[in-house]
Amino acid sequence: MRRINDEIAAGNGLLHRRTLLRGGMFATAIGVARADDTIGDNAPAWMKTPGRGFSGYGFPARSQEKVQRTFNAAPGRPGTGSSRTPIHLLEGTITPNGLHFERHHNGIPDIDVSRHELLIHGMVRRPLAFSVDALMRYPMETHIRFIECPGNSGGYAQAQPAQTTAAGINGLLSCSEWTGVRLSVLLGEAGLLNGARWVIAEGADAAAMSRSVPVEKCLDDAVIALYQNGEAVRPEQGYPMRLLLPGFEGNQNVKWLRRLKVTDAPVDARDETSHYTELMPGGKARQFMFAQAVKSAIIKPSFGMTMRGPGIYEISGLAWSGAGRVKQVEISADGGKSWAVAALGEPVLSKALTRFRLPWQWNGAPAVLASRATDESGDVQPTRAAWVAQYAAGQFYHFNGIQSWGVEADGTVKNVYI
Amino acid sequence: MRRINDEIAAGNGLLHRRTLLRGGMFATAIGVARADDTIGDNAPAWMKTPGRGFSGYGFPARSQEKVQRTFNAAPGRPGTGSSRTPIHLLEGTITPNGLHFERHHNGIPDIDVSRHELLIHGMVRRPLAFSVDALMRYPMETHIRFIECPGNSGGYAQAQPAQTTAAGINGLLSCSEWTGVRLSVLLGEAGLLNGARWVIAEGADAAAMSRSVPVEKCLDDAVIALYQNGEAVRPEQGYPMRLLLPGFEGNQNVKWLRRLKVTDAPVDARDETSHYTELMPGGKARQFMFAQAVKSAIIKPSFGMTMRGPGIYEISGLAWSGAGRVKQVEISADGGKSWAVAALGEPVLSKALTRFRLPWQWNGAPAVLASRATDESGDVQPTRAAWVAQYAAGQFYHFNGIQSWGVEADGTVKNVYI
Repeated sequence: MRRINDEIAAGNGLLHRRTLLRGGMFATAIGVARADDTIGDNAPAWMKTPGRGFSGYGFPARSQEKVQRTFNAAPGRPGTGSSRTPIHLLEGTITPNGLHFERHHNGIPDIDVSRHELLIHGMVRRPLAFSVDALMRYPMETHIRFIECPGNSGGYAQAQPAQTTAAGINGLLSCSEWTGVRLSVLLGEAGLLNGARWVIAEGADAAAMSRSVPVEKCLDDAVIALYQNGEAVRPEQGYPMRLLLPGFEGNQNVKWLRRLKVTDAPVDARDETSHYTELMPGGKARQFMFAQAVKSAIIKPSFGMTMRGPGIYEISGLAWSGAGRVKQVEISADGGKSWAVAALGEPVLSKALTRFRLPWQWNGAPAVLASRATDESGDVQPTRAAWVAQYAAGQFYHFNGIQSWGVEADGTVKNVYI
Repeated sequence: MRRINDEIAAGNGLLHRRTLLRGGMFATAIGVARADDTIGDNAPAWMKTPGRGFSGYGFPARSQEKVQRTFNAAPGRPGTGSSRTPIHLLEGTITPNGLHFERHHNGIPDIDVSRHELLIHGMVRRPLAFSVDALMRYPMETHIRFIECPGNSGGYAQAQPAQTTAAGINGLLSCSEWTGVRLSVLLGEAGLLNGARWVIAEGADAAAMSRSVPVEKCLDDAVIALYQNGEAVRPEQGYPMRLLLPGFEGNQNVKWLRRLKVTDAPVDARDETSHYTELMPGGKARQFMFAQAVKSAIIKPSFGMTMRGPGIYEISGLAWSGAGRVKQVEISADGGKSWAVAALGEPVLSKALTRFRLPWQWNGAPAVLASRATDESGDVQPTRAAWVAQYAAGQFYHFNGIQSWGVEADGTVKNVYI
């Protein structure tokens, strides 16, 4: 039998990703008679009377009532702000529809679906209107994709680490199976005119939220999404339809989509000038970054969780890249001095969340955990310091530096910078 | 430009799976000024006032209120029966948690999770008890898997085709991303004794629903599932934990799992003797079929939908196999005389639902559509007649014959046998 020391993959107790756990570590040994004692009169109360019946649409268990989105709205503007997916309370990679993060610029419109249309106009041969019923007749495609707000993880731009949960840092991030119509098919029917370079996407909310999208993306993997994890797209995510631009920053995936105007120039909409730009040294702002960079975050353990003494733990978290597939995730337990390669959950999908896992033998001493992802384009997460050094003070969009947690000797977990 | 006739893949208008659709078929042409007329004062009402704010846990749009499970319970026993996923109203492959099909044998128990334990006992060296908290410390794994009731599609055993929706025929079928602990790890800790051949799984419901599982499956890909599409397993699917036996018939994936007793023989529980057996010619019943056979069903179009005149339609549906991956799905539009190969949605995953799609040019005449799946083991769906001929009258479990729909000249769709 191999000893645990044969499995060391990196400093401070990181074990090889294929290490098999052994030996009744977390279970309680029971007497032979114990199991038979739990049947008949000794069965739990909930086995002694018939249970609840069927329902048309089900909900989580009552004891899960704390598994909720947390939200912040602007004072006096209850529909302007964002809510966060409680990623620290979830597992796997799919976000249940009720917990998908929200970012609204003037609330969720209550759309009469029978009157909603998607218009394609501007620099096209034939302006077209598509009812929801008409779109339902087109061929569809289905893909699992993440959506992330470009402000996600922006807390890392602060001088001092924010003491908040993994959701408080990275919860503007969700992943769903989306189904809809390939946008290139619809643009092909409208017929792009020479000189068409941009598509201005507008939502049917009270902000008429608008973004400029390069026509190349619209002709690539963009989809008019009608279904989210099997059912109709939720109101909070754009019912009856949203623009899905795989890998692009969240707000470009315009919700409640009503117009696509083909143009030769970007529109410089409010949400691509006053927001979502990058503040550069010298006082300039950079626009139009589009794809979210390669990122990763450890979720188990994270702030708010308590380690229960020395022993073996599974470190797990999420990695993603707007450029395609995650190629590798490395984990450090010594603050970045040494790194071990984590196991990636199969299948690793393009522009989707990837769950990584690695066993760790914690010796009970303070330790600093960090994760570092590489995507298939070869991009690697920079250090936080290297990321910050690119920008002017105040820049917080598009943070993709290495994130880290400090494990204290008493088992508590804090956010720390390395 | 290719003519549509160059794309013919099989009789009666089936087109090649890579056929690109052309030409404004379903959109409405609009004047150049029309789109600009919809801004400002002419914008829809829902753009003129701020929308609704944020929520901790979201729900489907009000206009989706008919997207519900339909259920049948035994007279006077509201928790005994089943509910069906409305697959005819969904798309993609993931089933939202609120719509996962249900099969309860005595209702949904209201479990106090702090008092629930999983016991492993019987022919083991060390009987063990696992609290939910203890299980959370084990390494986890995540897989997308279907679960199907062995009674699903049983209506096909009737002499006359049932005139009901795709859900009425195939709705005891759902697919989720499940996360949990590999059972082999826990059995390894308990230590199987020589002669261990079966594991009796028991649920904590008022039926103490029990099934015998071969120990080989428990040491293979079986998982104690704690999460379903990211969040805690729903009460209807076994909260706080269910046994997940990928590809095995639904009821063996015991919900509210409380005991795994290792034995040398099956227990002959009520639900493996009075139910879920196969009635054979000569009066015998066959037990213990385990894996669900290769199957497929066309969902668009299906009963209850109406075709809107001649033209191009996307045929789509679901295919699955308890033996592994779906290798191929063929579609016929002439009642089985000729077949064309459908496109399969990527990634094709083992023991998960696979969405297939194929364009069809309907000429407006009556037509009979059918689908036929082949899995990676080489198994192919038999004809309905061949399936029926294997069994005694009354047998309806494990139907996996070819299914078919008749499209009438007026565009209505009926269930027909071929």
